[in-house]
Amino acid sequence: MISVVILGSGNVATHLINVFLKVDSICLKQVYARNLNDLGILKKNILSTNNLALLEKADITIIAVSDDAIAPLSSMIKNSFVVHTSGSLDMNALKNKGRKGVFYPLQSFSKEKKIDFKSIPFCIEAENKDDLSKLKILASLLKAQAYFLNSKQRKKIHIAAVFVNNFTNHMYTIAYGICKEHDIPFNILHPLIIETSNKIKNLAPKDAQTGPAKRNDKETIQNHLNLLTDAQHEIYLKITQSIQEYGKKL
Amino acid sequence: MISVVILGSGNVATHLINVFLKVDSICLKQVYARNLNDLGILKKNILSTNNLALLEKADITIIAVSDDAIAPLSSMIKNSFVVHTSGSLDMNALKNKGRKGVFYPLQSFSKEKKIDFKSIPFCIEAENKDDLSKLKILASLLKAQAYFLNSKQRKKIHIAAVFVNNFTNHMYTIAYGICKEHDIPFNILHPLIIETSNKIKNLAPKDAQTGPAKRNDKETIQNHLNLLTDAQHEIYLKITQSIQEYGKKL
Repeated sequence: MISVVILGSGNVATHLINVFLKVDSICLKQVYARNLNDLGILKKNILSTNNLALLEKADITIIAVSDDAIAPLSSMIKNSFVVHTSGSLDMNALKNKGRKGVFYPLQSFSKEKKIDFKSIPFCIEAENKDDLSKLKILASLLKAQAYFLNSKQRKKIHIAAVFVNNFTNHMYTIAYGICKEHDIPFNILHPLIIETSNKIKNLAPKDAQTGPAKRNDKETIQNHLNLLTDAQHEIYLKITQSIQEYGKKL
Repeated sequence: MISVVILGSGNVATHLINVFLKVDSICLKQVYARNLNDLGILKKNILSTNNLALLEKADITIIAVSDDAIAPLSSMIKNSFVVHTSGSLDMNALKNKGRKGVFYPLQSFSKEKKIDFKSIPFCIEAENKDDLSKLKILASLLKAQAYFLNSKQRKKIHIAAVFVNNFTNHMYTIAYGICKEHDIPFNILHPLIIETSNKIKNLAPKDAQTGPAKRNDKETIQNHLNLLTDAQHEIYLKITQSIQEYGKKL
């Protein structure tokens, strides 16, 4: 049995609370939220507080709040082992006097959408082996996979996540705009989008690269550029150049 | 029963030959290839020729060759209804004297990878209703979905496909590079990649956009930029700007 206290009421906190409540070997002792109403209907099923002086002790205290609130909040608590869930902050962003660690779920969370924790990689870090082992067990109780990443690596994977999530979604947004401008249903692109994301499970993305930029098909590139709005034109050109520069290096 | 002749031996031609051979109501009468050896083991199962003078007649003659070969090849054949399979060329790129059309499968093909035609949208176009209906029936015999797109729309969807396939794959390539530089296994990103592509089945991509660019989190953006190589830096900045410009317009 692992006991856990969570601080936070946002996306990550909410999903962690929900999944912890479902696992018998995890005891969610308490949830802290500045405003208890933010916990919504969850409030009925958990012990909660908005008073840090009443915070319970636990094997692992998880701070799942926005990046800029992690330092001030952690400086006010006395629990023995405290972790944050941020991808971009150093473990030492925590200012508690006790032991520190990181329990970062590498996934895009929305409050409304159910999360299958089995498919979530947790990037874990701690100051000593025992604490690291605790975090590994916590991940395994969620049937999730744990990766040992230090703070430097975690910051890098967080940037890589921006590319494959935020920036990829922006490519979808531009395509959506092109479809809308010309009365084409966007769902015509779904199969290609799914195929593109599935392909790199078995193939390094540089080997999966195709298209006019890759084969330096200047005529098609020029035809495309002629058909785009200024804003689309600029990003098309920049990514085409980037594909060609990367192609030279690989 | 629909009879078909195919000209070509590349990716698209090969996949079409393979699937046509499996459907009882489609009679693949003949395949033309300039070099019959390019047909590989398929040659045993089909009637083939490398002589255009011996080309069979059929309900639909499909030219599945590279874009620049479509005009010269089509000018040399006398079949009644001829279509090409290109996303970027006008229907009138065909130079046959008979009727013309387009049968463009909107998917990324590799010769080695099996294709599930059920999930492939075909963009179809023809000069008259009867021919359009033939193409629709052909798509339905493959259990695929047909979309009526004119040449202008098809060119646009081809550009949109570059964004969601080629450019998205380049985002994966950059992320792969970041992982490699820091000894992080790239497969840690697979769940996020899959989630990102699945999300837009139910949510318009502009509504799915998250991340530092979207919320204009200047500190995180600057931290990311400081950690990137010059080439990564440039593309990160450009896409971040593009997300913010699009955000204003939507």
